[in-house]
Amino acid sequence: MAEGSLAALIDSLRRLPGIGAKSAQRLAFHLLQHDREGAQRLAQALQAASTSVRHCERCHTFTEAPVCDICLDPQRDARLLCVVESPADRAALERTGSYRGLYFVLMGRISPLDGLGARDIGVGELLQRAGDGVTEEVIVATNFTAEGEATAHVIGEALKARGLKVTRLARGVPIGSELEYVDLGTIAHALSDRR
Amino acid sequence: MAEGSLAALIDSLRRLPGIGAKSAQRLAFHLLQHDREGAQRLAQALQAASTSVRHCERCHTFTEAPVCDICLDPQRDARLLCVVESPADRAALERTGSYRGLYFVLMGRISPLDGLGARDIGVGELLQRAGDGVTEEVIVATNFTAEGEATAHVIGEALKARGLKVTRLARGVPIGSELEYVDLGTIAHALSDRR
Repeated sequence: MAEGSLAALIDSLRRLPGIGAKSAQRLAFHLLQHDREGAQRLAQALQAASTSVRHCERCHTFTEAPVCDICLDPQRDARLLCVVESPADRAALERTGSYRGLYFVLMGRISPLDGLGARDIGVGELLQRAGDGVTEEVIVATNFTAEGEATAHVIGEALKARGLKVTRLARGVPIGSELEYVDLGTIAHALSDRR
Repeated sequence: MAEGSLAALIDSLRRLPGIGAKSAQRLAFHLLQHDREGAQRLAQALQAASTSVRHCERCHTFTEAPVCDICLDPQRDARLLCVVESPADRAALERTGSYRGLYFVLMGRISPLDGLGARDIGVGELLQRAGDGVTEEVIVATNFTAEGEATAHVIGEALKARGLKVTRLARGVPIGSELEYVDLGTIAHALSDRR
């Protein structure tokens, strides 16, 4: 039933990750029926962000300045460098309020199936960044998925070869969980990493 | 962590129905990291649709012309008028391929909690449309929710008072379902409406 610019809008929404054909139609109808102002505002926000947001020259996170706030903050401990897969992961770590070092944001993770190798995710830039003479420890905080683990392995080996101390976030039982319902791999890790 | 235009983008995305804070952040990061072209395309699609899409003068569905394709189609049976809550419902009925009459799209449903009464959803326009002298039967196809049923009741009474035949979509057991797992209200309806 959708024609012209309505069909184009539904199609553009459907290309977003996690938005299927039905959701795209529902979103388009909602915007046109109840919130044209919201549609205009979203259009402007997309336009503005996609032209003005760039990557921090030091850590590669999103920022509108050449270097991001955290990289510029003299209060942060420059001897610690935490490597994450995405700006969202950096945000999650930052929200814990328990990390005072710097970050390096990879462009994703090594994923042979998607044709993404070490070069594509910026491992070269990471090695350069970590070799600044100030960094002492690199905390590898890639995800605990198969691809994240593989990425952690590749990064870890490369960094160790350059004489840097490399650590990984602890694996263990999540807070608030009952052992009965925790998967066995996690329990096994929690057991071997007991302290 | 998000600042300026990135924060504005996340905020605009979060106002979409069904998109929470996490999804909004994920969508924004995805667009900026992997698909700036998609962001631009979506911005243009939003802009174009929100300026050029309007409501059909006869049935109130979305269209770019003054009157929509279905209302203009001489092959459709003008004696039948099907009332739905939204363009999405119209699209669903149309996809069945088993209806050859015309439609009237309400602006939602009567919902006292949201402050939406008969006037807000366009019942007046419906009465005017149905009173064109050609319409013989009005099929009320509002949703089978409490609000949809209330809307159907209000519309039905108003239309009957004007001497029109009013019918409602059949309630019953969905195709492919096992009685054991169908809710009791539905089975009771299917029983009383047996044929």
